Amino acid sequence: MEDIKKMIRNIPDFPKEGIIFRDITTAIKDKDTMKKIVDLMADEYKNEKIDYVAGIESRGFIFGMPIAYKLGCGFIPIRKPGKLPAKTISREYSLEYGTDKIEIHKDALKAGDRVLVVDDLLATGGTATAACELVKDTGATLVGVSFVIELEALEGRKRLPKDLKVSTLVKY
Amino acid sequence: MEDIKKMIRNIPDFPKEGIIFRDITTAIKDKDTMKKIVDLMADEYKNEKIDYVAGIESRGFIFGMPIAYKLGCGFIPIRKPGKLPAKTISREYSLEYGTDKIEIHKDALKAGDRVLVVDDLLATGGTATAACELVKDTGATLVGVSFVIELEALEGRKRLPKDLKVSTLVKY
Repeated sequence: MEDIKKMIRNIPDFPKEGIIFRDITTAIKDKDTMKKIVDLMADEYKNEKIDYVAGIESRGFIFGMPIAYKLGCGFIPIRKPGKLPAKTISREYSLEYGTDKIEIHKDALKAGDRVLVVDDLLATGGTATAACELVKDTGATLVGVSFVIELEALEGRKRLPKDLKVSTLVKY
Repeated sequence: MEDIKKMIRNIPDFPKEGIIFRDITTAIKDKDTMKKIVDLMADEYKNEKIDYVAGIESRGFIFGMPIAYKLGCGFIPIRKPGKLPAKTISREYSLEYGTDKIEIHKDALKAGDRVLVVDDLLATGGTATAACELVKDTGATLVGVSFVIELEALEGRKRLPKDLKVSTLVKY
């Protein structure tokens, strides 16, 4: 994955001092790197009979939709509060200061649906864990969760639900 | 396009009273409808030598990335202020009350690049026009702009830049 890693731009002190932001925009601008990321993320689940990819707003939309397209399954958005127009269920998660919330349509998934959750980055795992819980709240079967990038020092992998396939392409 | 239209859910009084919200989540949940939308939007530009699809946050990400994947080109996000980590250029546009702003990375595009702008919905055309202007600000060639849905009564098409291919799949 070194060829993908070298296409990810490192931006020091964004969004605040001391943080190195891993910028995927340079990787998806390059057509070959973009295709490679999508194909690798999708291929990992091609034998898992995925019914739906659930992408977390908004960089999870960027990777989740082409993965769903490649796997030949449907796409379900998990969004920030107030964006989904029909009845929703929600989960709160902790931030460094305070809490935030994400939502899924109540009728988006049902028992028996096999679901893959997709986002760009696994950091502390707060958002991804909330997204996984939301999928389980609908009664669906959560098969795995897939990220482009994993920040290993933040140990997000440990916070995610157990008995779950966790896939990451590029590690820092 | 009647088969696509019937998969779009109509939600009355969202986000406020008197508005019928056209909900694309039911259309992209259905794998066949999702694939058909992406294929039709991409095929319209397959002979236009598109170098980059630029998607407008955040439902433009949902359609823009798989279209870029299918066309075999790169993807450029156009985002709300403060989200893009490197140097940006921005454009303001009018809302019903007040103004809003969108941004693109300053180095995302250059003269000679052929660009297709993608979003889910053409309403009054304010956001799309700002996105088109941003693409032109970089010096790139704006080839077209593609939407899933057009709300014809709002006449957004008239506000878009002239000499531009404008594609919409489903009209209300």
